[in-house]
Order: sequence, then C-alpha cells, then structure tokens
Amino acid sequence: MAGDRVIVVGAGFSGLAAASALAGAGVEVQVLEARDRVGGRTLTRRLPDGGWLDLGAQWIGPTQDRMYALVAAHGLTTFPSPAVGRPTVCWAGRRLDTAPESAGQVFATLDGLAAQVDPAAPWRAARAAEWDRLTLGGWLDATAPDPGTARYVGRLLAGGLLAAGADEVSLLQLLFYLAAGGGTGSLLEMAGGAQQDRIVGGPATLAERMAAALPAGSVRLDHPVEEIAHDGTGVRVRAGGEPHIGAAVVVAVAPALAGRIRYAPPLPALRDGLTQRMPMGSAFKVHARYPEPFWRPDGRSGVATTDAGPVTETVDNSVPGSPTGVLTAFSYGDEARQLRRLPVAARRAALLDALVALHGPAAARPADLVEYDWSADPWTRGCFCGMLTPGSWCDYGPQLRPPVGRVHWAGTETATRWSGYLEGAVAAGERAAAEVIAALG
Amino acid sequence: MAGDRVIVVGAGFSGLAAASALAGAGVEVQVLEARDRVGGRTLTRRLPDGGWLDLGAQWIGPTQDRMYALVAAHGLTTFPSPAVGRPTVCWAGRRLDTAPESAGQVFATLDGLAAQVDPAAPWRAARAAEWDRLTLGGWLDATAPDPGTARYVGRLLAGGLLAAGADEVSLLQLLFYLAAGGGTGSLLEMAGGAQQDRIVGGPATLAERMAAALPAGSVRLDHPVEEIAHDGTGVRVRAGGEPHIGAAVVVAVAPALAGRIRYAPPLPALRDGLTQRMPMGSAFKVHARYPEPFWRPDGRSGVATTDAGPVTETVDNSVPGSPTGVLTAFSYGDEARQLRRLPVAARRAALLDALVALHGPAAARPADLVEYDWSADPWTRGCFCGMLTPGSWCDYGPQLRPPVGRVHWAGTETATRWSGYLEGAVAAGERAAAEVIAALG
Repeated sequence: MAGDRVIVVGAGFSGLAAASALAGAGVEVQVLEARDRVGGRTLTRRLPDGGWLDLGAQWIGPTQDRMYALVAAHGLTTFPSPAVGRPTVCWAGRRLDTAPESAGQVFATLDGLAAQVDPAAPWRAARAAEWDRLTLGGWLDATAPDPGTARYVGRLLAGGLLAAGADEVSLLQLLFYLAAGGGTGSLLEMAGGAQQDRIVGGPATLAERMAAALPAGSVRLDHPVEEIAHDGTGVRVRAGGEPHIGAAVVVAVAPALAGRIRYAPPLPALRDGLTQRMPMGSAFKVHARYPEPFWRPDGRSGVATTDAGPVTETVDNSVPGSPTGVLTAFSYGDEARQLRRLPVAARRAALLDALVALHGPAAARPADLVEYDWSADPWTRGCFCGMLTPGSWCDYGPQLRPPVGRVHWAGTETATRWSGYLEGAVAAGERAAAEVIAALG
Repeated sequence: MAGDRVIVVGAGFSGLAAASALAGAGVEVQVLEARDRVGGRTLTRRLPDGGWLDLGAQWIGPTQDRMYALVAAHGLTTFPSPAVGRPTVCWAGRRLDTAPESAGQVFATLDGLAAQVDPAAPWRAARAAEWDRLTLGGWLDATAPDPGTARYVGRLLAGGLLAAGADEVSLLQLLFYLAAGGGTGSLLEMAGGAQQDRIVGGPATLAERMAAALPAGSVRLDHPVEEIAHDGTGVRVRAGGEPHIGAAVVVAVAPALAGRIRYAPPLPALRDGLTQRMPMGSAFKVHARYPEPFWRPDGRSGVATTDAGPVTETVDNSVPGSPTGVLTAFSYGDEARQLRRLPVAARRAALLDALVALHGPAAARPADLVEYDWSADPWTRGCFCGMLTPGSWCDYGPQLRPPVGRVHWAGTETATRWSGYLEGAVAAGERAAAEVIAALG
C-alpha cells in the first residue's frame, strides 16, 4: 500500500480530508481540482476593513468533532456566532419574538419520525417507501395544525436545511437529514446547534492550510477531470487532456458533479441513475454590510425567520476585528429562483424590502450588498448539497457509497452523520480513504 | 443564412430531423454523434430468420403525421402491430379479458385534469403547483376507488408511459404527458392509438436512411461532444479533442445528456438546474422468441397487463416475414431496477415466471430471451425519456426550449405534442431548426 498512488477528484473539504488521510498512511496522492482554488463550497472574501465574508459554508457546532480538531490542528480558532439578543419571527404579518407553539409541535412530530430513520440506511425504515412518495409540502398540508404553520415549517426546514422548496423534497429526504444532524434543535439552533461557531478567517482559510499541509505538488488546480478509466489493475484519470495514473480514485464531489465525468467502463445503471436524481439545492445568500450592527442596541440578535418570501431567514454575520455590521439573508427554492431571474436592481430592491420588513427602516441602506450565486458556478451547480428526488431513496440511496471497482465515492452527500455539512464532508473523505487503504491492502 | 454552418449534437431522430430541415434550407450541417451508429433511442437487431427485434422505440400511431410522412419519404412502409384477439388482464390473481371499470373511471378523471394542462406550458395550469407537489402514487391513493385500482393504474400509466414508478413522478408530469399525447386512450391503445403501427425493418432503418439523405460527410460517428463554447459571433464545439466551428448549435439529446456537456460560458443557473432534475425513465424491455406465436390459436392477442410485478405489460412483437412468435415484456421503475440487480439466470427465471403467469405454461421455454439495458448505455442513460422530478415543473419547465445565446435545444423532451415519442423528437428537431434559421436571418 505504501508506495501506491491514489487520485482524488476535488479539493473541497472531503477531498482534502481523504488526501490527508491517505498521505498520512504513506500513500502518494494526487488531488485534481477543477477550479483555481481549494475549498469547494466554502469561499472567503477578505475585506479591506479587516473583516471577511463567508460566501459559502461557514458554521460548525457541537458534535462536529472532526471540524473542531482540524481547526485546532491547523492553528486556527473559532468564535461564537454573534446572536446576542432576541430573534425576530415574522408570522402572518406580525413581528414576534418566537414562533408560535404550533411550529414546535410539528418539529417534535418530525423528530419523532426521524428517530425511526437510520441515516446510514434510510431505505430500511419500515415506512421508507410511504415517506419517500410524499413531498414535505404534501405531508405538512395533511399534518400541520393550520396552513400558516405548514408554510412556516416548510420554509424553515426544506429551505433552511436543504435550500429547497417544501414541494420538491420528500418527507424521507428531510427525515434522513434530521437523523444525520441530530434533529431539529441541533440543526436549527445557533448556540448549542449547527450554527454555534465560525472559524476566524473563514473556513476557506482552513482549506488552504489543509492543502498546504499535504506533500508538495499534491494538489493541481485548474485540472477539471473529464474521464475516469478503471480496470482490475488501476485507474487512469484524464484531466485537461493529461492522464493521471493511480491504484484507485476517490471522487470527492457531489453526485450531480460526479455524473458529469465520463467513466470507462460506464457506471452501472443504478449508480448512474443516482447521479441523475440528486440535484443540488438552490440557495441565494446575500450579505448586507452596514456601518455598524444597528440591531444590537435594540436588543435584537439579527436572527430572523419569516413566513413570507423572498427571504426565509437572516443572521448577524459580523466578524471580530471589523466594526461593520453584516446581516446575511437566505432565500431558497422557488423564491431563490425568482430572485435569480430578476435584473440586479430589481433583485436588490426586493432584498432590501425583505430586510426592512424583518429589521426595520435602518436596514434599507447598506453600504454594500454582496451576493455569490453557487447555482451559476459549473463546479458546484448549487448548494447547500445534493438531495435525492421524491421516490428515489429506496432504489438509489443504497448506491451512494459502495465503490465501483477502484472508484470510491466521498463528498458530504455520502456522510451518515452531518450529511450536507463540513463535518460530513470530512467524515466522508476519511471513510473513503480508509476504504481505499483497506482495498489496496 | 445560406452558407452558414450549424452543428447538431446527436444523431437520433431529433438531430436528424433538425439536420434535414437545416440542409433543406441551404445551411451546411455537421452532426456529431457519440455512438458508432445513428438512431438514438431506436436500435434494430436483425435476425437470421428474416425478422428483426426493435430493442428501443418502435411504434407510431394516428396523428403522428411527421413519422408517417418520413416513412413514406424514405421508401419504407408500416405494418399494423399484431394484436388480434383478446388481451389479458391479471388482476388480484385472476386472469380477465378487460380491466375492471374502476380503472377506466380513473383514466377518465385523469383525462379531465389533463384537459386543463397546456402541454406547451404545464406550469401555467391553474393548479400546477398543487399537482406538481403530489406524486402520482399519492394522488391515486387518495383518489382511486380502491387500492387495487390505484396500483393497476399507477403501474400502467407511470410505468407504461414514463417507465417510472408511480411514486417518483408528479401528477403534473403525467398530466403533461397525457395532454401532449392526446389522453389515455390515444396513448394506451394499440389500434387507434400510439402503438398502432410499426415500421418494416425497424425505425433504426429509417434513421439510417435519414442520415444517408443528408449531404455526404454531414454525420460524424464516434464524436462525443465534450464542450460547447459560444459567444456573439458563433459556436465552437469540441468533440474528441477536435474543434467544430459553426454559427449555432442544436443540442438534440435529452437534458440528462445535455447536462454532461461542458459549456463556456457556463449555462445559466436555471437551465443547468433543469438538467439536474430531469432523469431518464427506467425500463427493462425483454423479447422472448418462440417457434411460433402460440397464443394466437387460443384467440389471445399477446397483449397483457398486470397488477403484479416484475413485468407490467407484454405485447405480441412478431414481425412479418418471420415465423417466430415474439412476446415482448416491459418492466418499469423499481421493478426494472430490481431485475437489473439480479444475476442473469435469476433475472431470466423471474421473467419467465411472469410470462407464464400472463400467457400460460407454453411461455416457459422461449428459444431465446433478448434484453438490452438502455440505463447502462452512457449515451442514453435510461428510457423512454426524461421527466421532471416532483416539484420541478413550475420553475424549470420554462427552461426547456428557450435558446441560450446560439445554443438551441431539441430532443423529444422539448416537444409539445407527442413528447417522449419519435414524433415528438422529429417535431422538436424541426422546431429547433426553424429557430436557428430565423436567428441566422
């Protein structure tokens, strides 16, 4: 095994974690990355005021132990997400401090169902087929105590967790995600939940350090992989016309991207079918920068959720070392797609209207409004992550992880804990590396 | 316009029809085909007994005027599908001559809903969003008079029309398909419907003649397109490392294949998102060849439908000029995927059991059992056609046809009449050619 060479496709967190584990085991790794940077779905924009914006994935929280360990190992630190004060909930045209109890009841019902789902094998749940044929929207219509609650919960869960509309994800897809992330409390909370902490300098800084810690020359940027040929003796990966030879390959990108690579021999029908049925989510994340965090003196946290579009939620995304106040707004699913279709000026106006509705007139004039559209990025194709379409989990879910010959699959979509998160990406990369090491003997 | 050069991606019926229309208008065409043959989702296997098997698309019927005209124009003829005698319906373990009336009632309800859907714009139906969030399976559970009827109708419509399970297609997707094909009667019938006639020699023979009628050198086989670069001045299409320059390009492949091509600049987010949300169906079509059509002396037509898997339906697929009797069995969706996972001997045994259940013990020993798995073919990725996943029609449906700069879209999935059929493929190719001709002025 030592002396073997393994190709890793993609230098996001999953690919970097796989490469690191392989290199640590004495395997020579060659990471091929399509973009001109590492970090995958993380992207940090440094600002002249000493601050920065996280344009992609940005949070870590309790039980995401791999991420905290990586942060420490690479000499970085975390800081608590600023969420001091009362949140805002816009509900039926009114501004409240908390969502009505009816929402909590639906969350509890969903957590109860999620407890029946093993995130390593959602297709084995006794009611898997039934839950997969229902969209979350359809289930909420039938289950929530009133239409307003159905609407609010659908936006918060399908949107906030999967960056989708409640009508395009199955109940089973949501239950899988809840089970993998520890339930609605763990997934939705700031302090004590998945949004608890951020990384000083942004997660992209961590990705850069992970890449730098690999042996020199391990990562090649601007090397989009076009073809993976594999047989009993090894793999031959073509990127930009050049062949890269190895004993195995770890494909550490989302299924929607893995499906664009050509395979020789072609992938088995069911594995190829998986890549046709796992579209990326559709989020629009916009950062509004203000001279200062104007909401804090009023005792407001900047955290807001709402039952009316186009924005589903906001957070205070300010960072230490900069006086600037940042409100980051998220729009999901069809509302994100509607924003995307607008001309820039109209989109800006719609976003500012939404911010004013949530945070008052002071939100109307940010110094700057920064957006980055992951759905328009051909090396991502959307965010936060891929999700199986309704009715697809039972047949295609089992294809997520089993290797095809010497082709192994990583990426956060293959994780069984914290799927869709940085933690899941790292865990999946490490799992794929262990698989390869075992296979190479 | 005359003197311009246009690239066509794909030499299926849609690409060939586009090329033919362009060439007829004096445009130079270059058709680039990934396979070593033309014909796309049609494939004819010639047999030593003088007969042939149609391994892919095979039927044409009333109102498919373009197809009948093409058959005549290329010196071919049709013959009526052999369906003389009584059909067989297996229902709740019994063999009947017709399906119970309850199935017809559900068909009528669906035809009534389909009448509210414009197949050129399903997203404009008043209840589009509601119908798209429901899977057909979920709708049938709530609507059919009993579970047996729900099951039978779901298998026949999601399966027989879309090669899918009722739980993986939305009600709106089915209504679109019904509206585009003239309703359940038009779509399901042999005589008088979409299965009325076949082409002597198979449709692949027609594709070969369509290709041969183009100017010499127009079609290049073994040229899989890897990249389409386009700007205000023209297109540059890379296939097998070679560049092909043109004034415009017609992409005449299914969205799931179009999404594998790299575009420069990248496709707009919504158009790329469409290609992530339109998987191909999953059919398993198997031909059992017998010394003679043993079912005919008993007054049976060989046409059978059943409420129990793994086979959903069979037809008499014998051809003139050969004494052989051919029963062709279709399996769809999860049942097709289960068959696909079985070792060959077990699959063969399961198929023969199903044939015996439908056609008696004489079906047990065919001389030959011929299968072809379109889902394992990387230049098709499944059949019959692509379908939008539940919840996707309203946002992504409008992206099906509008060109992106000089990139135009054909393929049967873009048709507004007979989408999913050969007729739709040809109509879509002609529509895209007309678009290009108008754009080139």
